Amino acid sequence: MDFAYSERVQELRGRLVEFMEEFVYPNEKTYKEQLEEATARGERWTIPPVMEELKREARSRGLWNLFLPDSEYGAGLKNIEYAPLCEIMGRSPIAPEAFNCNAPDTGNMEVLVRYGTEEQKKRWLVPLLEGEIRSCFAMTEPDVASSDATNIRGSIRREGDHYVINARKWWITGAGDPRCRICIFMGKTNPEAPRHEQQSMVLVPMDTPGVKIERTLPVFGYDDAPHGHAEITFEDVRVPTSNIIWGEGKGFAIAQGRLGPGRIHHCMRLIGVAERALELMCERVKNRVAFGKPLSEQGVIQQWIADSRMEIEQARLLTLKAAYMMDTVGNKEARSEIAQIKVVAPNVALRVLDRAIQAHGGGGVSDDFPLAYLWASSRTLRLADGPDEVHRAQIARLELKKERRPSPH
Amino acid sequence: MDFAYSERVQELRGRLVEFMEEFVYPNEKTYKEQLEEATARGERWTIPPVMEELKREARSRGLWNLFLPDSEYGAGLKNIEYAPLCEIMGRSPIAPEAFNCNAPDTGNMEVLVRYGTEEQKKRWLVPLLEGEIRSCFAMTEPDVASSDATNIRGSIRREGDHYVINARKWWITGAGDPRCRICIFMGKTNPEAPRHEQQSMVLVPMDTPGVKIERTLPVFGYDDAPHGHAEITFEDVRVPTSNIIWGEGKGFAIAQGRLGPGRIHHCMRLIGVAERALELMCERVKNRVAFGKPLSEQGVIQQWIADSRMEIEQARLLTLKAAYMMDTVGNKEARSEIAQIKVVAPNVALRVLDRAIQAHGGGGVSDDFPLAYLWASSRTLRLADGPDEVHRAQIARLELKKERRPSPH
Amino acid sequence: MDFAYSERVQELRGRLVEFMEEFVYPNEKTYKEQLEEATARGERWTIPPVMEELKREARSRGLWNLFLPDSEYGAGLKNIEYAPLCEIMGRSPIAPEAFNCNAPDTGNMEVLVRYGTEEQKKRWLVPLLEGEIRSCFAMTEPDVASSDATNIRGSIRREGDHYVINARKWWITGAGDPRCRICIFMGKTNPEAPRHEQQSMVLVPMDTPGVKIERTLPVFGYDDAPHGHAEITFEDVRVPTSNIIWGEGKGFAIAQGRLGPGRIHHCMRLIGVAERALELMCERVKNRVAFGKPLSEQGVIQQWIADSRMEIEQARLLTLKAAYMMDTVGNKEARSEIAQIKVVAPNVALRVLDRAIQAHGGGGVSDDFPLAYLWASSRTLRLADGPDEVHRAQIARLELKKERRPSPH
Amino acid sequence: MDFAYSERVQELRGRLVEFMEEFVYPNEKTYKEQLEEATARGERWTIPPVMEELKREARSRGLWNLFLPDSEYGAGLKNIEYAPLCEIMGRSPIAPEAFNCNAPDTGNMEVLVRYGTEEQKKRWLVPLLEGEIRSCFAMTEPDVASSDATNIRGSIRREGDHYVINARKWWITGAGDPRCRICIFMGKTNPEAPRHEQQSMVLVPMDTPGVKIERTLPVFGYDDAPHGHAEITFEDVRVPTSNIIWGEGKGFAIAQGRLGPGRIHHCMRLIGVAERALELMCERVKNRVAFGKPLSEQGVIQQWIADSRMEIEQARLLTLKAAYMMDTVGNKEARSEIAQIKVVAPNVALRVLDRAIQAHGGGGVSDDFPLAYLWASSRTLRLADGPDEVHRAQIARLELKKERRPSPH
Repeated sequence: MDFAYSERVQELRGRLVEFMEEFVYPNEKTYKEQLEEATARGERWTIPPVMEELKREARSRGLWNLFLPDSEYGAGLKNIEYAPLCEIMGRSPIAPEAFNCNAPDTGNMEVLVRYGTEEQKKRWLVPLLEGEIRSCFAMTEPDVASSDATNIRGSIRREGDHYVINARKWWITGAGDPRCRICIFMGKTNPEAPRHEQQSMVLVPMDTPGVKIERTLPVFGYDDAPHGHAEITFEDVRVPTSNIIWGEGKGFAIAQGRLGPGRIHHCMRLIGVAERALELMCERVKNRVAFGKPLSEQGVIQQWIADSRMEIEQARLLTLKAAYMMDTVGNKEARSEIAQIKVVAPNVALRVLDRAIQAHGGGGVSDDFPLAYLWASSRTLRLADGPDEVHRAQIARLELKKERRPSPH
Repeated sequence: MDFAYSERVQELRGRLVEFMEEFVYPNEKTYKEQLEEATARGERWTIPPVMEELKREARSRGLWNLFLPDSEYGAGLKNIEYAPLCEIMGRSPIAPEAFNCNAPDTGNMEVLVRYGTEEQKKRWLVPLLEGEIRSCFAMTEPDVASSDATNIRGSIRREGDHYVINARKWWITGAGDPRCRICIFMGKTNPEAPRHEQQSMVLVPMDTPGVKIERTLPVFGYDDAPHGHAEITFEDVRVPTSNIIWGEGKGFAIAQGRLGPGRIHHCMRLIGVAERALELMCERVKNRVAFGKPLSEQGVIQQWIADSRMEIEQARLLTLKAAYMMDTVGNKEARSEIAQIKVVAPNVALRVLDRAIQAHGGGGVSDDFPLAYLWASSRTLRLADGPDEVHRAQIARLELKKERRPSPH
Repeated sequence: MDFAYSERVQELRGRLVEFMEEFVYPNEKTYKEQLEEATARGERWTIPPVMEELKREARSRGLWNLFLPDSEYGAGLKNIEYAPLCEIMGRSPIAPEAFNCNAPDTGNMEVLVRYGTEEQKKRWLVPLLEGEIRSCFAMTEPDVASSDATNIRGSIRREGDHYVINARKWWITGAGDPRCRICIFMGKTNPEAPRHEQQSMVLVPMDTPGVKIERTLPVFGYDDAPHGHAEITFEDVRVPTSNIIWGEGKGFAIAQGRLGPGRIHHCMRLIGVAERALELMCERVKNRVAFGKPLSEQGVIQQWIADSRMEIEQARLLTLKAAYMMDTVGNKEARSEIAQIKVVAPNVALRVLDRAIQAHGGGGVSDDFPLAYLWASSRTLRLADGPDEVHRAQIARLELKKERRPSPH
Repeated sequence: MDFAYSERVQELRGRLVEFMEEFVYPNEKTYKEQLEEATARGERWTIPPVMEELKREARSRGLWNLFLPDSEYGAGLKNIEYAPLCEIMGRSPIAPEAFNCNAPDTGNMEVLVRYGTEEQKKRWLVPLLEGEIRSCFAMTEPDVASSDATNIRGSIRREGDHYVINARKWWITGAGDPRCRICIFMGKTNPEAPRHEQQSMVLVPMDTPGVKIERTLPVFGYDDAPHGHAEITFEDVRVPTSNIIWGEGKGFAIAQGRLGPGRIHHCMRLIGVAERALELMCERVKNRVAFGKPLSEQGVIQQWIADSRMEIEQARLLTLKAAYMMDTVGNKEARSEIAQIKVVAPNVALRVLDRAIQAHGGGGVSDDFPLAYLWASSRTLRLADGPDEVHRAQIARLELKKERRPSPH
């Protein structure tokens, strides 16, 4: 066993930390101000110019597409190598995009690398890798409990050399972004097929007639502009059959492959979120005095700090272990570990954030600190990609299936 | 012992429930739409017209100023009588104002009834009771840990027959409301006096020169328009000495009297919040199917419902007990119970809301249901009027002081 | 609403508290020593003489059979009146018996009062009320999940004017007591009847041939001598048919009536347990110094005390509310509240005990304080009379059945 | 990073697992029966013969003294190598002794290896390594909060070439063992020295005049015979000055070195405890039916299993990480991680055990399964070697000391 990061990872971490300190943190405020100025001009859904500057700078330093395990198109890092990098990016809401490592684009790019045709890659993957366009992923539906993916009923009907798509989808993250050009749509090509072969994924350009963004959904009051979470109707949307990914009935199989790494990316970012919250809490309590001594010397506050540290350490180790297993025994064998981090990481981040908010008093629930926003966005991750309770049930089923020679008693 | 509500309370509850169903719930959407229309017109900080209609209707039915224990100016209800009514109002974010029972106006009116001069009552109390103007309360300061009230350092300096006020205050709820005319300001008249006689309260009309609303603070992305939570600077603000309430050095004493009932009102509203969340959760889970059966038949969901029910029942009883003690032995003797409900009620509401959000999936974090907004506003109540940890410390101190004949062992 | 105890209750509480201080607490040590001496003589399962003295004293003061709502045979107190008395008895493991108010005898006496024939009353009820004999209740079986009472399969077969009983039962509390003469046995008279009419209760004298105590079961290392929890086999045990209680198929109906009051008694005793633990914790932390100040001034300890106080207050109020409902609307309508206290009370007691143990250091897990023993016996009450999870499921089902006019959103 | 155990560790684990299955589990019952037979003979404090057989067998297979990092006297394994082995031993209460790896002997042997003179090693270390004698460690005192080690006031006074020892100590684990010959005693040689140089450790043969075992202390009803936890008085106990370990004033320094590995051993054993509890829970719920289906298919039970799995995985990884840091950067640099596992491991084990107990119904609190005993002994580890709250405070202090370049906000 070896708990040390490899030299390559350490070197990349060093450069990432430096970039965060030099460019990202100081520009969080700039980003927000540019967004507010745009809003005041009536152009809320536009990209703050500082983001394109950050992207250029990150790319020029080779901190670009680190997420992609494929070494032809991306950095060729294993999950265990990318995880500690992704954590650092997670410390700021604006960081992942600066490194072209933000969801849902990362998952979509990975799908195209693995299952896309050459034509699909050329048309959509390359501009995504360049950071020129953005993408979205349309699976969840408002009318059914989407936690059970077999409930998904968006229709993909074949008509000659086209598919005709009809559906109402929501929580389509990134669809509000003016640069969003392509959607990976999941729906049923064959409702009569065996349960896990009914679904397919199809590429739908956002400007296809019949694609309509009905509204964007707020998250605890945050609209997440300029990316947003859209509710979209697809009404008789026609795309050529060549837009199918991998083939009809492959939707589930792709989803499984897509969600594994995606989940671990979310989790590593959440570790970064939690670390930043703990850091802010420590700074705060050293500098506030109540009832005659600094908050940092009060037992209850110390308990919050200790509990946060213990929870973060454990969550990070579990995430790294899951990454290690994905690399060594594969996503399928690592199912339980992936489900475990999917439950653990958001809950740990939320607990640490909640304590940090409490330690910040009124400031904590406002936007003077990033805590409230990070709390709101972390809260969605107890629902997105499967709610806690569904993952817990899966963990239990896998546990109950283990072969054991029971000890007598 | 008797756990039944009195006939008068039952009758009033019946009428309140009816009003909520007939007027309040159906107009929540109207209120939001009118606010959005005003926002689109660039007039976000204006009162949706439906609110004045609701107020007229409630007043015409005698559901008005129920909060005020004084029977000359108000309904003359005891805390134990008002508590079950306040709970019902708490079920909707727009209800308390409709009944002229919203914070911070209720606390301010009570201060004026108890400690105001005839002149002060005439000028400020009467229009507040009529619902014509609104008020705010300026205590918390951004630069110090205001959980320890002795940290408050806003300055009230006497110059002849005027006070000159200088301070930076924040979290001044309601100050963004265009009808807000008067502020009760808390600060130090005499920093040299004994610790609990340094502070005073002074009436400051909002249009006094030197009063400047710097900004309003969001709560988890919600700006709470049209009321808002303001950061205000007071720069050489001059008011006549007749604007002092009760007298110099009485700030602490008034605060103590003000916060007791105020806290219990918040808590009863939070019980109402929790009840509504549980109700929405029950409706939701009956109507969603996942993995072959309704969510309502799944064990984990049932556990959420049961835990919510048990927590709500207990929190309500504790709040009623505290109200009973305030009525029978007084706020001072009821200190521990008041502190207890101040900790219990928001935490219970937050837990129930969190479960309800989880049961609603993506919808839960959006504004399609009132859950996310109620969560955000309930979260502030673990900080406002003293953070949990300060109340816990007080409860413990009171417990440790109890005289006991210890049992041997 | 009125949270004050009635004058009669206050008077009785005063006398009970006095009795506890004068006789019970000082004799806890005596009781233990007498038991140890008997053990050293090889006579562990004998009653320490001090107990009979305590009983005489309590009886002479009219503190006897207070549990029994029937005013012919007992004190004629309502549940809401007995609950605050029962709490006081719960503060010492040896107190309930001293007042002839200990489980399972109380439940058994109540069954005989309500459903017994004159003959059954004369033979068994009277000596139980006199405190001359003890009884037990045989329901739970080792081979099935008895949390689901329909699993119970002990057989009661009629043969002429006798019943022939065959079963293996365990957790028969009190069966190890040398004074235990009578058992209320629950089993199936008719496995073909509708589900809730298969079971019956039959009186089985402990000296009937075929009744064999196989062993007593320890609870976390405590054997609970001289009462114990027995595993008993019933092999072709014959009793006259006149020993049936109420009639064949009435087992469920009786159990429902029996368990309601029984549960509330357990819960009130648990409130007493928790109060004593909190009291001991407060004493302890005032008198121990670590890291330069008394434990009582350390924030984390204060949090334990505050949380304990809040949990106890709420649990007590909920238990009283349940008692009130049993008195006013009946056990059936109070089902949810009874289930709620059954979950809440043991869990609260266990949490308070655990904190008190932690505050006592090594002493807490030993028998130098009553904490460890009380923890072990409280832990069984998360299982006895139905495990937490079964009660939670019932609370949820009742909640989901409520008729509601759902608010729109 | 590499999460795989080394080949040597895997090979040893395989052999240990085999030994557990072949010899340990089947003999748990034998051990208990032999102890009960001895008790019936009035010889409770004697070693069940099966233990010496197990020791011979384990030794013959080279599974002996694996704990000792020193390669001259022991197996020469690093902490990261021993941890996964120790976990397996932790699965049975009787296993560690069979491998000569039980506390407190392991810690004592390590102290002698590191700090003992040749003479001390010859006289005490060798027979301990051979498993011929047992030892104890006397630090905790009943009269002071020993969580703050500076409170310890046992006196070691020098008189010529002897030390004269006076003290009352308790929780001296293993002192009841008839084979216990030697005690490492901690007390003050110089109350005037700087705070961390007042304490020393001295070897005290158990048969020295003045050493008196006053009693053994039960743990939740368990007396832990034949080892026990003793209260011992030391009255004018005289030992030669050559019995000092390392030198006067070195008590703290030795304790620090001793407690690091000792803590990690406890924690790894606790992981084993938790794994066995989870295993027993899984077996149980597959084989019990309630309300129409196996417990294993009920959502709440599945949640217990999933939560247990997640907590165990995280606790194990944190323990391994701490072991790794002890090996690579040393005990001092690993202080926070050691404190973290000391808090995490017992709490995780207790939670998993509690769920397993609940799933076992009445059986869970009895001795028909090892759960209740393991719960009781695990509970002591939230107190032994420093209570949770002291470790939490230390973790917080170390966290607050970290140098950080705080991010702006």
